[in-house]
Amino acid sequence: MNSIKNIEVVYSPALLPFYQLNNKIVVVIDILRATTSICVAFNTGVNKILPVASPEECALFKDFDFLCAAERNAEKIPGFDMGNSPFEFQNPLLKDRNIAFTTTNGTKAIKMCKELGAEKIVIGSFLNLAYLSNWLKNQHLDVVLLCAGWKNKVNLEDTLFAGAVVDMLEGHLIATCDSGLMAQQLFKTNAHQLILLVRKSSHAQRFKLLNHHTDDVAFCLQLNTTPVLPILSGEYIINHIQ
Amino acid sequence: MNSIKNIEVVYSPALLPFYQLNNKIVVVIDILRATTSICVAFNTGVNKILPVASPEECALFKDFDFLCAAERNAEKIPGFDMGNSPFEFQNPLLKDRNIAFTTTNGTKAIKMCKELGAEKIVIGSFLNLAYLSNWLKNQHLDVVLLCAGWKNKVNLEDTLFAGAVVDMLEGHLIATCDSGLMAQQLFKTNAHQLILLVRKSSHAQRFKLLNHHTDDVAFCLQLNTTPVLPILSGEYIINHIQ
Repeated sequence: MNSIKNIEVVYSPALLPFYQLNNKIVVVIDILRATTSICVAFNTGVNKILPVASPEECALFKDFDFLCAAERNAEKIPGFDMGNSPFEFQNPLLKDRNIAFTTTNGTKAIKMCKELGAEKIVIGSFLNLAYLSNWLKNQHLDVVLLCAGWKNKVNLEDTLFAGAVVDMLEGHLIATCDSGLMAQQLFKTNAHQLILLVRKSSHAQRFKLLNHHTDDVAFCLQLNTTPVLPILSGEYIINHIQ
Repeated sequence: MNSIKNIEVVYSPALLPFYQLNNKIVVVIDILRATTSICVAFNTGVNKILPVASPEECALFKDFDFLCAAERNAEKIPGFDMGNSPFEFQNPLLKDRNIAFTTTNGTKAIKMCKELGAEKIVIGSFLNLAYLSNWLKNQHLDVVLLCAGWKNKVNLEDTLFAGAVVDMLEGHLIATCDSGLMAQQLFKTNAHQLILLVRKSSHAQRFKLLNHHTDDVAFCLQLNTTPVLPILSGEYIINHIQ
């Protein structure tokens, strides 16, 4: 029997304990910028990515021939190979390499899903929206979309993306929770002006204050440029070959 | 100096610990139905309301000539004078009486704000939207809008109301957080069809399953029918005379 699967949206990692994750697929969403950068990395040909909790832990992996990427408060930590800008993950020298990665929100959210017993944990961004959505349609499990947010607060860009996924899956999965309904409506109302809206977000304002030199907002809102499906396998994120 | 005040929206009591409440006014929002019922009660002429944590504690106040109202999971608890339907609080016999009140989400949220050190705690619903908003404009404190939600999950009707308040206060208070921006947009997009939208909410579906006899959804979405400002004073909620 092919019963209708359910899709839920969780607006902050702090709300995750109120959801049941067993036998569910969790999509981790950190549009600005961890999950976008992870999609770019696999599109570049990275072998595997190890999400780690702290910069200190991340640095240890230098000795094992990992590249080490670390970001806190939207800035690259000095001494690491990379920060968290997706542009850094386009470098062809990354092909076949392993990366240890720690960020303010995204990598923590991934580890939390694992601890709470999710069946599968995958990575979503606007860059793999269609590829991810098609894969989710063909799975036989309920889906939880987890917005990584900003230090446990709700953010705009992750919610918009969750709404985009709910919208893509309409007719295949049903959003019974209010958070799914709200996210979908937010996305549909703004589909024609995503960049304009996200430039108003608190995280985009943070980039502005930090005087970032690349336009990460526009980059992270590109649609379907990386046909990859990053999935957690043991401790590592790998690219799932469909 | 009259600096621009800030307004933040908190989508669930579980997110409240990530906000600073000192020197702020918190508006507690539980549209379906606790904060609506509280507005109705004061409009009927109730003297004061004591929010309590548990039905057991609530029942104790019968001995002190309180009327006792208790709801859990959208149903009145048997043996109490009232549940949580706003229709019950229109009874003229309530005039000048004191009420002890416990509900699934709303009264818990009120107590939490107090514990976290909010300067002032007031009650919001569509029924006192304009009256509340005008009062907030004339205060000299930042504002936090707290959605009581459903068992720590985000809900539609509380978020819609938060968006309505952000919208009413535009030009007077500024929403710097993404949650305020999102709530305002949700409200503006749906201002013409609030009842229709809220009938799709998970809580409205819950009422349907319970076969409620009154149309609480339509009642709770009435605009500006009760010119009252319920405010916490010590342990009690009273009607603040402006």
